[in-house]
Amino acid sequence: MLTRLEPAQIERVVRMALDEDAPWGDITSQALVPAEANAMATLVAREAGVLSGEDVFTAAMELTDAQLVTSFAVHDGERFAAGAVLATVEGPARGLLQAERVALNFVQRMAGIATLTAQYVAAAAGTKARIVDTRKTTPGLRLFERYAVRCGGGHNHRFSLSDAVLAKDNHLALLGADADLTKALIEARGRLPHTTHVEVEVDRLDQIEPVLAAGVDTIMLDNFSLVDLRAGVAQVAGRALVEASGGVTLERIAAIAAAGVDVISVGALTHSVRALDLGLDF
Amino acid sequence: MLTRLEPAQIERVVRMALDEDAPWGDITSQALVPAEANAMATLVAREAGVLSGEDVFTAAMELTDAQLVTSFAVHDGERFAAGAVLATVEGPARGLLQAERVALNFVQRMAGIATLTAQYVAAAAGTKARIVDTRKTTPGLRLFERYAVRCGGGHNHRFSLSDAVLAKDNHLALLGADADLTKALIEARGRLPHTTHVEVEVDRLDQIEPVLAAGVDTIMLDNFSLVDLRAGVAQVAGRALVEASGGVTLERIAAIAAAGVDVISVGALTHSVRALDLGLDF
Amino acid sequence: MLTRLEPAQIERVVRMALDEDAPWGDITSQALVPAEANAMATLVAREAGVLSGEDVFTAAMELTDAQLVTSFAVHDGERFAAGAVLATVEGPARGLLQAERVALNFVQRMAGIATLTAQYVAAAAGTKARIVDTRKTTPGLRLFERYAVRCGGGHNHRFSLSDAVLAKDNHLALLGADADLTKALIEARGRLPHTTHVEVEVDRLDQIEPVLAAGVDTIMLDNFSLVDLRAGVAQVAGRALVEASGGVTLERIAAIAAAGVDVISVGALTHSVRALDLGLDF
Amino acid sequence: MLTRLEPAQIERVVRMALDEDAPWGDITSQALVPAEANAMATLVAREAGVLSGEDVFTAAMELTDAQLVTSFAVHDGERFAAGAVLATVEGPARGLLQAERVALNFVQRMAGIATLTAQYVAAAAGTKARIVDTRKTTPGLRLFERYAVRCGGGHNHRFSLSDAVLAKDNHLALLGADADLTKALIEARGRLPHTTHVEVEVDRLDQIEPVLAAGVDTIMLDNFSLVDLRAGVAQVAGRALVEASGGVTLERIAAIAAAGVDVISVGALTHSVRALDLGLDF
Amino acid sequence: MLTRLEPAQIERVVRMALDEDAPWGDITSQALVPAEANAMATLVAREAGVLSGEDVFTAAMELTDAQLVTSFAVHDGERFAAGAVLATVEGPARGLLQAERVALNFVQRMAGIATLTAQYVAAAAGTKARIVDTRKTTPGLRLFERYAVRCGGGHNHRFSLSDAVLAKDNHLALLGADADLTKALIEARGRLPHTTHVEVEVDRLDQIEPVLAAGVDTIMLDNFSLVDLRAGVAQVAGRALVEASGGVTLERIAAIAAAGVDVISVGALTHSVRALDLGLDF
Amino acid sequence: MLTRLEPAQIERVVRMALDEDAPWGDITSQALVPAEANAMATLVAREAGVLSGEDVFTAAMELTDAQLVTSFAVHDGERFAAGAVLATVEGPARGLLQAERVALNFVQRMAGIATLTAQYVAAAAGTKARIVDTRKTTPGLRLFERYAVRCGGGHNHRFSLSDAVLAKDNHLALLGADADLTKALIEARGRLPHTTHVEVEVDRLDQIEPVLAAGVDTIMLDNFSLVDLRAGVAQVAGRALVEASGGVTLERIAAIAAAGVDVISVGALTHSVRALDLGLDF
Repeated sequence: MLTRLEPAQIERVVRMALDEDAPWGDITSQALVPAEANAMATLVAREAGVLSGEDVFTAAMELTDAQLVTSFAVHDGERFAAGAVLATVEGPARGLLQAERVALNFVQRMAGIATLTAQYVAAAAGTKARIVDTRKTTPGLRLFERYAVRCGGGHNHRFSLSDAVLAKDNHLALLGADADLTKALIEARGRLPHTTHVEVEVDRLDQIEPVLAAGVDTIMLDNFSLVDLRAGVAQVAGRALVEASGGVTLERIAAIAAAGVDVISVGALTHSVRALDLGLDF
Repeated sequence: MLTRLEPAQIERVVRMALDEDAPWGDITSQALVPAEANAMATLVAREAGVLSGEDVFTAAMELTDAQLVTSFAVHDGERFAAGAVLATVEGPARGLLQAERVALNFVQRMAGIATLTAQYVAAAAGTKARIVDTRKTTPGLRLFERYAVRCGGGHNHRFSLSDAVLAKDNHLALLGADADLTKALIEARGRLPHTTHVEVEVDRLDQIEPVLAAGVDTIMLDNFSLVDLRAGVAQVAGRALVEASGGVTLERIAAIAAAGVDVISVGALTHSVRALDLGLDF
Repeated sequence: MLTRLEPAQIERVVRMALDEDAPWGDITSQALVPAEANAMATLVAREAGVLSGEDVFTAAMELTDAQLVTSFAVHDGERFAAGAVLATVEGPARGLLQAERVALNFVQRMAGIATLTAQYVAAAAGTKARIVDTRKTTPGLRLFERYAVRCGGGHNHRFSLSDAVLAKDNHLALLGADADLTKALIEARGRLPHTTHVEVEVDRLDQIEPVLAAGVDTIMLDNFSLVDLRAGVAQVAGRALVEASGGVTLERIAAIAAAGVDVISVGALTHSVRALDLGLDF
Repeated sequence: MLTRLEPAQIERVVRMALDEDAPWGDITSQALVPAEANAMATLVAREAGVLSGEDVFTAAMELTDAQLVTSFAVHDGERFAAGAVLATVEGPARGLLQAERVALNFVQRMAGIATLTAQYVAAAAGTKARIVDTRKTTPGLRLFERYAVRCGGGHNHRFSLSDAVLAKDNHLALLGADADLTKALIEARGRLPHTTHVEVEVDRLDQIEPVLAAGVDTIMLDNFSLVDLRAGVAQVAGRALVEASGGVTLERIAAIAAAGVDVISVGALTHSVRALDLGLDF
Repeated sequence: MLTRLEPAQIERVVRMALDEDAPWGDITSQALVPAEANAMATLVAREAGVLSGEDVFTAAMELTDAQLVTSFAVHDGERFAAGAVLATVEGPARGLLQAERVALNFVQRMAGIATLTAQYVAAAAGTKARIVDTRKTTPGLRLFERYAVRCGGGHNHRFSLSDAVLAKDNHLALLGADADLTKALIEARGRLPHTTHVEVEVDRLDQIEPVLAAGVDTIMLDNFSLVDLRAGVAQVAGRALVEASGGVTLERIAAIAAAGVDVISVGALTHSVRALDLGLDF
Repeated sequence: MLTRLEPAQIERVVRMALDEDAPWGDITSQALVPAEANAMATLVAREAGVLSGEDVFTAAMELTDAQLVTSFAVHDGERFAAGAVLATVEGPARGLLQAERVALNFVQRMAGIATLTAQYVAAAAGTKARIVDTRKTTPGLRLFERYAVRCGGGHNHRFSLSDAVLAKDNHLALLGADADLTKALIEARGRLPHTTHVEVEVDRLDQIEPVLAAGVDTIMLDNFSLVDLRAGVAQVAGRALVEASGGVTLERIAAIAAAGVDVISVGALTHSVRALDLGLDF
């Protein structure tokens, strides 16, 4: 049950992108292509992957010309092979040509994220660890990129700075060397809505007990060696969720997952997206 | 003489990103960090690269808290080594923590583009070829990403579908098999402002003459072999600019440039950005 | 440590209100009052209360005329007596007259909420129950009204439908009569970010165990009698937070709080705001 | 003939409210309710009142999910008894649950205003006095609240500071003690469009003549005793409209109206709205 | 006492115009002019006129580059001769060149309106008639153009369809041939705020009495001959204001004014603006 | 093949204009015209001209009331005689009356521009010169006014400061008296996208060679006498396009065109628009 993006969210971002790419129209199509010409194009995968962005691709077409009809043969979250025909678009040629690049820019990026996520998820298969994204998303596209992570079988972390607490080393450092960490965390929780999840990052095993003593919901073990990760999981012993973070690569993720953590956050899912090679063939 | 982004452009995008990342504030900092606490942080390079985004980084800080003072030691377009201190930020701790991720998301992406561009530019050094970007940019960030290309020593292609003509294979195909291409292009120019640059993509050498006969400004040789590229350049013989496009990699670019083309467009500069590893140390 | 509203949030809403109230200026002041006239006014309490909205009041003045200087003698969250001078404003008379009503509309509403909240908080004093708001806020003013609740000593519930789960009777009814509630809730959590707080509303005592079995974070006892409330608290026995909801009045709240619940949500804090009687004396 | 709100006005405000309440969707419904589930709900009055807001309620549903069909059995401006079914909504369950609170927040507030207005109107029945609102409306909702006043049988005062003159004590005070009030008002009118209605507030009977001498359209008797009110009406003697203002309560309004005034403005209609108790039953 | 435009109104429109004219900067200045170059320019009148738009001109400069300093020697509403130096601007050359055209577009249009208005006002001098504008303004610039009319010594008509009634022939025709016009107008007034000015257009002398019987505030004599105009004024006899409208030219206006009307509305003030010839000399 | 305005562009501007003209509805129609009344009106030409703006007129109607149906008998770019019926509109009377002025304001202005442009185009007929607009357009309406120029048979110049270079006397003056103009222009081109058209204005014949030496695309001969114009064209000799500019009137344009220039730019097309006399008859 994949939670879709809402139409209003899609429209807002896609319209902005269309405006950016054609502030006063597509002068090439207008000058060369007759207004009444129709065309048909297929969205073809030039490499294998996992789809994400069908509604966004469709919106780029429809918002450019309401007469463009898009039909997807593969759906978000589904795998496809190189050479697969993912969708067809049919309608006014000018609109199709105008929307092409924006539609591809979105779907290539989103499918790229979904495909990469699926690789991380597969690598951690068989463990209880969920693969989650971070706030290292492209400015303006967080909703889209988080959705792409879900399409790839991943999960989302907190949406923003506003909806959950994640106290990092810098926050704790600002409390001062002599601060009573447990007390500070308990006081903070007293100021927060009771619905706020509190997660705290620790860098060393000896920080775990004072943090747990404050009744946090998740403890993040940041940049822990595998040995320390296993020790940390054992120490937490189910008293909070355990998230592993830092230095997570496709090579290391199986071992990290096997250490028994509940959550593994992977900045690379979104901070360095490789666009999947998809093309529009007329 | 590097053309900077304009303050109003920066403010609009950065504010949107800040809103996205903290729609109702940074609840972690508000709950844990005293309102009156100050902090100092340094932007440190964890790998070598070329800087881009100092004004954007600064804006992310200042728009979060006008009291945050940012000072860059390295400037846009300059190279830096791993370990270099690029900038310092000083001011209210809450604001600094709140702005950190957005500021980094921008500068890591922009420096990533500048650094990659600089590699392409270096690989083509000694030839007359300029390295240019494409419309494969991140939706909403085109101005920023084009600026980053310039920081890396690259040049920009047309900004959008509205400001120059680039007739591609799909446009030409829609003219029909029997169409008189030269005539169609001349008629198109007749409908366009006299200030509009007309560029036409060709896939085969035999398309060059009919296109040149229309008096186009630039001819794009798309996915040409090196042999054909050299033949194409010879055939054009200065009657138009020549742009090479398609399959441009760091490995192949020197050879492409040596073929004598004027412009090499590289989608990879922006479509699959690897964020440069920069961090904020408190 | 009261979390303030952020300047950008205040500016956006106040500017909208000023535009609404003077779409093409204050024609009375422009026609009658000399442009160079200055004035001084005091914000006076015509009844006792708790202050909220000083930054909003100040913004209404400054955004109307940057030369208006506002100075508060009482601060947000502080109590004041009838007759107290809360603030003074000084500057161009036209601007002061133009901003007056908007500034008052905000602060009277916010102080009204803070004052009412403080009454509920006082009535529950000596118990562990925190008084929280609901989503029954004025469209467009949620941030301001939640802040006013905090000024009155109350706490906030989830901000919106997006940042925490609150499964109500209608959600559960849609699962069907035969649904395995525990299983459905566990599956739901599996789809949600690990940082999402899950709260479930129950109408009867016998619903508590299946909900708790799903490991929910908060259980809401909706419209329970005091007897049942005590029974519910006993049954939950610390396995989740307990929120009382429904029919909470100033008369009943002490008894509800004494039943041992952790949270009491009060729609009346914001759904039927009585503006506090504050006036601007010139 | 009740003037409705215009669709574009409704859409703008309702969309803002929906965004505020679900910035990235309704995670409860998405996690618990199947996408294909349908539901039917009825809007039920838990107390008697006068309806206002049917188009706004409907818009909240339709803008959340275009497939939601709303049908009202009672219409704006009509009275209903406790227990009455006001409307039914049918369609996708997720959308219905997501829109519920926003739809109710609007209609409860608007029906609350309409109902209260109807009480004031009824109390003044049999006199020529019209009951009007003031600028003490909720920031951002003035159009909606003024419409609700009309639904309750009331009338509207000027919309804003821009469309009519209302010179109050503070304006007059700024003219200075020695000012020739009549002359100042005549000069002001000379600067205003001929279509601008000029109303002036007086605090004492002896101010009436100089104000009338300036040919004002309406004279406001502010906080006058009943005795003075009657004297004022007699003195004006039809040379201008007379508005009573200040300290108007349900108890006093019949007497005020009986004093012969044309207009009675009641801030309480909108400044302290009690939401009417309406609920959505599934 | 000329009512100025408000800064927020100016900023909104000027920023839109600047964005329109330089969506991604002034590439000519950036490519040719050194970033550190400064320049000084004078705004010179190439023909005589009346100034309007100094704040708008200044805003175009400052919003382009905050370092540009503008100083006006002539002020809004003042006459100037051909050759007069109206203002000087000094600061960064790039910004000055970028803002030049937008700044001129505004001030030339506004001064053109002010100058034309002043001619109409002069032609009607010595009568009681005020010269007013209409709703035939440029979409988006109504506030600016109405201000320009005031700078020229004219007055404004109603601002929009929302703030005063002006019943025209088409409205009356829709009432039906048999309709009781007096009754319809009285009923309409009963539905409108008491602050709404009611003006009715008549085409024939015999319509005057039924309209006056409804107690309207202004009666518009539309396209009346001078003979009928005088007859109409005599017939109204001070029972309402009289506005002459239709076919008003500089040649006819003195005669129209001499007919004794209170108001003369002139669409030509704004519907066909000739830009005044002002230039920026460096 | 006339390039139309895009629907999204039209909607944005027309909605703004409708909001400006009726911020809270058309109170005259609402008070006087029954909600259920229908009407039919025809758009009639009171003078001959060339049409422009049919989609804009239609949008003004449809965005006011979606039930209004507009049908044009004459189309954009077509000539019509005085008395011609251009279009009919049918539907709800209130909406029709509300939209009338805004719809007319747009179409009268656009048809005015198209008609004037057609006169210039006719005057230059038989030469190769194209008539083009300038940046002297109404703030906010550039897209509409440029489209109107095309409807009249004219062409467009660059859209804005961002999409082509036009170096004017002021730019060149800032280079300094001793500057090597050729070198400066070549360096500028080196910094610009290869798709940027470079046009340079010269004031004297002796500036032509150094400018041409830089390989510019268009040379603008500003304010040249006819003798010099012919000399200039001869001197350029096809090495660049030649644009004549400055002092272009209907009287002089035939002679200017006959001088052999490629482009004649006419600020008067848009900077001083006379609205065409079109009316809506019910």
